[in-house]
Amino acid sequence: MASIYHSVIINTSKEMMCFSDFPIPAHFPNFMHNSLIMDYFRMYDDHFQLTKHIRFNTKVLQVKQRSDFSHSGQWDVETENKDGKKEKHIFDAVMICIGHHCHPNLPLHDFPGIDTFKGTYFHSRDYKTPEEWRNKKVVVIGIGNSGGDLAVELSRVAKQVYLSTRRGAWILNRVGDNGLPLDLSFDRTLNFFWKILPYGFFCSLGERRLNQRFDHSLYNLQPKHRLMSQHPTVNDELPNRILSGTIQVKPNIRRFQGSSVEFDDGSVVEDIDLVVFATGYRFSFPFLASHVVSVSENKASLYKYVFPPELDRPTLAIIGLVQPLGAIMPISEMQARWATRVFKGCIKLPSVAAMLKDIQCKQEAMTKRYVSSNRHTIQVDYVTYMDEIAELVGVRPRIWRLLLTDPRLGLNVMFGPCTPYQYRLRGPGKWAGARQAILTQWERVAQPMQTRPCNDPKPKRSFKWLLVLSAAVVGLAVLVYRNNLPAFVQDPTALLDKMKQYLPAQ
Amino acid sequence: MASIYHSVIINTSKEMMCFSDFPIPAHFPNFMHNSLIMDYFRMYDDHFQLTKHIRFNTKVLQVKQRSDFSHSGQWDVETENKDGKKEKHIFDAVMICIGHHCHPNLPLHDFPGIDTFKGTYFHSRDYKTPEEWRNKKVVVIGIGNSGGDLAVELSRVAKQVYLSTRRGAWILNRVGDNGLPLDLSFDRTLNFFWKILPYGFFCSLGERRLNQRFDHSLYNLQPKHRLMSQHPTVNDELPNRILSGTIQVKPNIRRFQGSSVEFDDGSVVEDIDLVVFATGYRFSFPFLASHVVSVSENKASLYKYVFPPELDRPTLAIIGLVQPLGAIMPISEMQARWATRVFKGCIKLPSVAAMLKDIQCKQEAMTKRYVSSNRHTIQVDYVTYMDEIAELVGVRPRIWRLLLTDPRLGLNVMFGPCTPYQYRLRGPGKWAGARQAILTQWERVAQPMQTRPCNDPKPKRSFKWLLVLSAAVVGLAVLVYRNNLPAFVQDPTALLDKMKQYLPAQ
Repeated sequence: MASIYHSVIINTSKEMMCFSDFPIPAHFPNFMHNSLIMDYFRMYDDHFQLTKHIRFNTKVLQVKQRSDFSHSGQWDVETENKDGKKEKHIFDAVMICIGHHCHPNLPLHDFPGIDTFKGTYFHSRDYKTPEEWRNKKVVVIGIGNSGGDLAVELSRVAKQVYLSTRRGAWILNRVGDNGLPLDLSFDRTLNFFWKILPYGFFCSLGERRLNQRFDHSLYNLQPKHRLMSQHPTVNDELPNRILSGTIQVKPNIRRFQGSSVEFDDGSVVEDIDLVVFATGYRFSFPFLASHVVSVSENKASLYKYVFPPELDRPTLAIIGLVQPLGAIMPISEMQARWATRVFKGCIKLPSVAAMLKDIQCKQEAMTKRYVSSNRHTIQVDYVTYMDEIAELVGVRPRIWRLLLTDPRLGLNVMFGPCTPYQYRLRGPGKWAGARQAILTQWERVAQPMQTRPCNDPKPKRSFKWLLVLSAAVVGLAVLVYRNNLPAFVQDPTALLDKMKQYLPAQ
Repeated sequence: MASIYHSVIINTSKEMMCFSDFPIPAHFPNFMHNSLIMDYFRMYDDHFQLTKHIRFNTKVLQVKQRSDFSHSGQWDVETENKDGKKEKHIFDAVMICIGHHCHPNLPLHDFPGIDTFKGTYFHSRDYKTPEEWRNKKVVVIGIGNSGGDLAVELSRVAKQVYLSTRRGAWILNRVGDNGLPLDLSFDRTLNFFWKILPYGFFCSLGERRLNQRFDHSLYNLQPKHRLMSQHPTVNDELPNRILSGTIQVKPNIRRFQGSSVEFDDGSVVEDIDLVVFATGYRFSFPFLASHVVSVSENKASLYKYVFPPELDRPTLAIIGLVQPLGAIMPISEMQARWATRVFKGCIKLPSVAAMLKDIQCKQEAMTKRYVSSNRHTIQVDYVTYMDEIAELVGVRPRIWRLLLTDPRLGLNVMFGPCTPYQYRLRGPGKWAGARQAILTQWERVAQPMQTRPCNDPKPKRSFKWLLVLSAAVVGLAVLVYRNNLPAFVQDPTALLDKMKQYLPAQ
């Protein structure tokens, strides 16, 4: 069973997280409380009449290849309903959609003395509301999204919250420039820069922006790794809580002793009432034979995170087993669109060797880019991954053609937020409403705030195309004159380091 | 009796709000919870052994000039202790330090139908904790600091919060650039620009910065008045709560009817459980004869907000009856230092006519600058007012002399935050620790965050002196070549308007 705490508000915005043919209602807020997301799911279900296809309250005990699998591709599925009644079924194909927040990761063995701890401890998954911790002393372990959120919420009632982090973190804001949802700026333009700029230079630009918001070094949160080497933690309130001292950032815990906690720097805090392990999750597929999908250390060998590459027939797909920089719902939907077409035989998967090579490439890229951690085994970048799967499905937008045939739409697709509707403009599953949905997306961003008549509010449009053009010209120049350029153009990071000397110390 | 809600955290930072000869402990957070401020007061009391001079739990019934007042300057004071026992005393001088948050302003007559309202309503003064309003619908009236804070806090538990504002507001952040407390940047440099730049230009620069954080127009909060024409509302979390829809900004209330509330735009919300009137305070001095200090519409005629100008003897001072852009405690302290020296006869007040003229000048300047409101009757700018009173007391820092004799200190005084220690460097009440306190102020800003070993964290120093020098050169050039300059230099606001055409619409 999934579990969330009462106050969870999602950190991806409505225009970026909706299903591609069913925009979230215009009056819904940009960042939705979990209850509103549930409302949206119910609307979706109602619109497409899905309930009749779903059997609720049913546990899947086993999913097993049939004896004639290499010929039929079929699966034996054993289920158990809530009354304990077991049933057997035969399915032509199976999609596993359990996500990656399956099992709480509670690494107690890494915390000597935890068995002597006199207070309460639990995994962040078991947290619901803060009230009972009023005037208590709390340690939160981990500075991922759960750790940050829980520390902030508890800090408003607790006597003191200590936020323990081994590595530190770069903290992003949900509310981005000009008050627009930050993820609206994760678009094709940014993706373009991400692809053409050197890694270190791109990170430096981003880190500089984050440090302008609050100096991660002054706040003792600065990690050794780069901005793009971690899954981002999004938290708008953390700086304020640290500056008011209601949250104290602490290093890793060395040991517990009775009610006291000793940290790696030797500091000790006494009388701790609660320890929250915001230490993430592990995933596994206990209902599958291990040779079908083997998981070790949160790594699974899957072709583009969906298909086990070595099955005789491609009739099993894992949906949503990615951790995107961006919203997961449109990605899951895209994976499902791909998987069903593969099941139907409309799309053929490449050879086993080709799939294994792709898997290996992706794993190597991830290892190279990310901090080594169980947290970074299924990372994808939203635009890149969506385009990749969309290309396979045949629904990737043809931007240059759009620019010529429908320039208004083309410019919006190229320079606007990469909303999911872009993947309904053509190909299988094309949706007639997609164009209009793209052209009205900014209106749906603004509408929920139109609750008090004021001057005409218009979200700020940026002239990023100017930037892109300039960058393209510069890029071209670099290509042409590569060997005759000053050193700093060949190595922008060196330039940045040089510039740093002239900047005030951070 | 003063009244605050449980979670109040002050919005002025510790280095800017402390008493001038008693820095707040280095390990205290920059923005203190009210319980820590109480701790600081107790430390102050303990250090200066004040308790023995204070009679607690005693109500002042009457403060009256003695019959020989014109000769003696003495006052008859009648008090009542908590057991109801009355006492008469004679005092040589009286300081009234009740502040301006005396009486809740509850303008029920402006809200037709409030008598039919079926839910609960109270003034923000009576708010304590949010829990009992879980899943309720709440309207908060007023977007001052209380209104903003309460709306945010209630929005975390309530079903929906509506924040009703007639005028809108410019919203400042406590956490300023690079994560430093915002008020550390309200220094002599900023004050210099505030004095030399045209009003509209200065406001435009500030408003542009605030809109970069979140577009006040998109959020329907943009007021018609300029940034510097209102007492600032400081709120770091409001944008996030609006973007997540848990707070809806609404216009003024037209009327109540049963449980429903109708707003000025005709929109109606039903089933309101609670209305919080965050409608500010009025002040008065009921224990004084009205001819001593007359108050009408929150206006009192006081010389530099302290001395009634027309008394025969200057033995009555009102302390803390100002609403500063900045911290009030150092200002109250400075007023007290002035008042005691006037009482002692070390400082003479000017003639009644001169005092009345000064009062009138200040009132006219206030009327010109601020939105007409009971909220804007005692506004002062921190640096300007501190320097003004300090000059009278003889403790205003002599910056040019400091730059020559002690350049390190001089640069810190000129370009660093205008911390209260600056007013203890010379003159009566000079404090030997002042120099050191100024030179170590940045360390005290950083120290509370040094809770996790990291890279050397240093608060970012800015090279504002370069800016100031440039501005001085430009200013000089303008003076010399006044009539030969292009139009935009003579009128920077026109330039800004021109620039706006080339900027994306907001």
